[in-house]
Amino acid sequence: MSINSIPTLQNIRKAHDVIRSYTHRTPVLTNRTINDLTGCSFFFKCENFQKVGAFKFRGACNAVMTLSEAEATRGVATHSSGNHAQALALAAHLRGIQAHIVMPENAPKVKVAAVRAYGANITFCEATLQARELTLKLVVEKTGSTMIHPYNDSRIIAGQGTVALELLSEYPGLDMILAPVGGGGLLSGIALATKGISPSIKVFGCEPELADDAYRSFKSGKIEPVMSTATIADGLRTQLGTLTFEAIKDHVDEIVTVKETTIIDAMRLIWERMKIIVEPSAAVPLAAILEKKVNAEGKKVGVILTGGNMDLDNLPW
Amino acid sequence: MSINSIPTLQNIRKAHDVIRSYTHRTPVLTNRTINDLTGCSFFFKCENFQKVGAFKFRGACNAVMTLSEAEATRGVATHSSGNHAQALALAAHLRGIQAHIVMPENAPKVKVAAVRAYGANITFCEATLQARELTLKLVVEKTGSTMIHPYNDSRIIAGQGTVALELLSEYPGLDMILAPVGGGGLLSGIALATKGISPSIKVFGCEPELADDAYRSFKSGKIEPVMSTATIADGLRTQLGTLTFEAIKDHVDEIVTVKETTIIDAMRLIWERMKIIVEPSAAVPLAAILEKKVNAEGKKVGVILTGGNMDLDNLPW
Repeated sequence: MSINSIPTLQNIRKAHDVIRSYTHRTPVLTNRTINDLTGCSFFFKCENFQKVGAFKFRGACNAVMTLSEAEATRGVATHSSGNHAQALALAAHLRGIQAHIVMPENAPKVKVAAVRAYGANITFCEATLQARELTLKLVVEKTGSTMIHPYNDSRIIAGQGTVALELLSEYPGLDMILAPVGGGGLLSGIALATKGISPSIKVFGCEPELADDAYRSFKSGKIEPVMSTATIADGLRTQLGTLTFEAIKDHVDEIVTVKETTIIDAMRLIWERMKIIVEPSAAVPLAAILEKKVNAEGKKVGVILTGGNMDLDNLPW
Repeated sequence: MSINSIPTLQNIRKAHDVIRSYTHRTPVLTNRTINDLTGCSFFFKCENFQKVGAFKFRGACNAVMTLSEAEATRGVATHSSGNHAQALALAAHLRGIQAHIVMPENAPKVKVAAVRAYGANITFCEATLQARELTLKLVVEKTGSTMIHPYNDSRIIAGQGTVALELLSEYPGLDMILAPVGGGGLLSGIALATKGISPSIKVFGCEPELADDAYRSFKSGKIEPVMSTATIADGLRTQLGTLTFEAIKDHVDEIVTVKETTIIDAMRLIWERMKIIVEPSAAVPLAAILEKKVNAEGKKVGVILTGGNMDLDNLPW
């Protein structure tokens, strides 16, 4: 599989074989109160319990574990201040190779410490996309390491798609699956896996109104830029990639957007009723149901709870 | 079984048969980070995922479901502003009988709403123990309902003991089990079940220094009063009962106390690392390990995470 091709269901199954022994098989939780409130039957796939606290570990793990020996010895590199940095650092650590992570100098200390704890080599740079990309380029040139993009990469998409494999193996009778969309790695992986297994299951991408680039791109047929990064759902502020957009365009049924206040309501509902911690991005699909942007009454609804990494000193209520 | 006798292992097994179809079999979670930090192997029994968000539902359910038909038709009653009120209200609802709950007039609105949502009949009274007990007496006289004490009752103790049955059926090789102690219903049930199954497994009760009545009672050999209710662990502010004290005296190995700051640290550790919500009382056993009040290094440690009902607007950090 080229890193620039759209993965097939078979690629996703193969990724599952590769990562299975390194990842948690996360539980699928149900909740009667949330079902009663919405009239749906929810099946929440809890990637907040995944290693590093987010689904991102699946893709990073698949990318790292499928490197050739020659590539692996030179290490891997990325720029990220979020979950992908930790995910790649841990995956590299597990393979026993070096990860080089470019982080903005204003990155939260806890995230820097977490990446360092996995033995990654951190290079700081200015907090602009330009500085990050340039610094990464220099790091890759110097080290010969392989750049692992956080989402626009077949290996990453295939890894994220394994979330749907696990969910559908436990609940094959779902009517629909809802996932948040940021860069689109998760949503495209989910859609490819789901439509490969059962084309009648609807797949919805859910996005904040304040970062509705995927919604606009899906309508216009070309990648539209992110106009604002003001959403609380910090995992969803990124723009679609060429590869993820192509997969989403062909395999996702609809993209819907939700208000910031509903994201917070949905997040609090999950915390209070399910007694689990999810980050704002993870609450966006439930927000879409609360806003009735997706007609799901009486349906069996799979929802990907993407992550649980949250600054407990800065809660939105 | 009289409601004033100490339950046997057989009583606890019977309680499990009674409540099994009404309760969740809660998961047992592990966490590598917390293990690495402490040098123990933890097995967390997640009663924060139990119905009504706390283990209390087990005891209340056992008490309600084992009433005779004649008793049941006249309903059940208790005074509580906490988890026992919701637990009894839900159990009564499931049996289709009336619950009468006496609540202090300053009880949090969310708790009143939750009790009411289960169809319970609420009587408000002044927020003193005296007023609560008098009001309950009047309610019981008027309705002929059966008073269900939150912990000093064999049926309740047997119900709470089922937590240990489930934990030990999955992990029979534990070296010790730690549980918080307030009124002692949970701790006595856990100790009776555990020592009945495997006397070599140590059982520890864990208590805030600021509410150390069980610690003092265990030392002195008689029930000592609670001197303060200042602890953040609001579920543990109650005093031992005659029945729970007798069981604890004979079957618990040790009671240890912890500082308030360690309770908050332990709670935050569970939230951040396990991505689950537990209330302060539930964090007291991990606090005992963090303070090295229990020598658990290298041991397999069962911990009961008792509940997850928490006001998200009033976090202690």
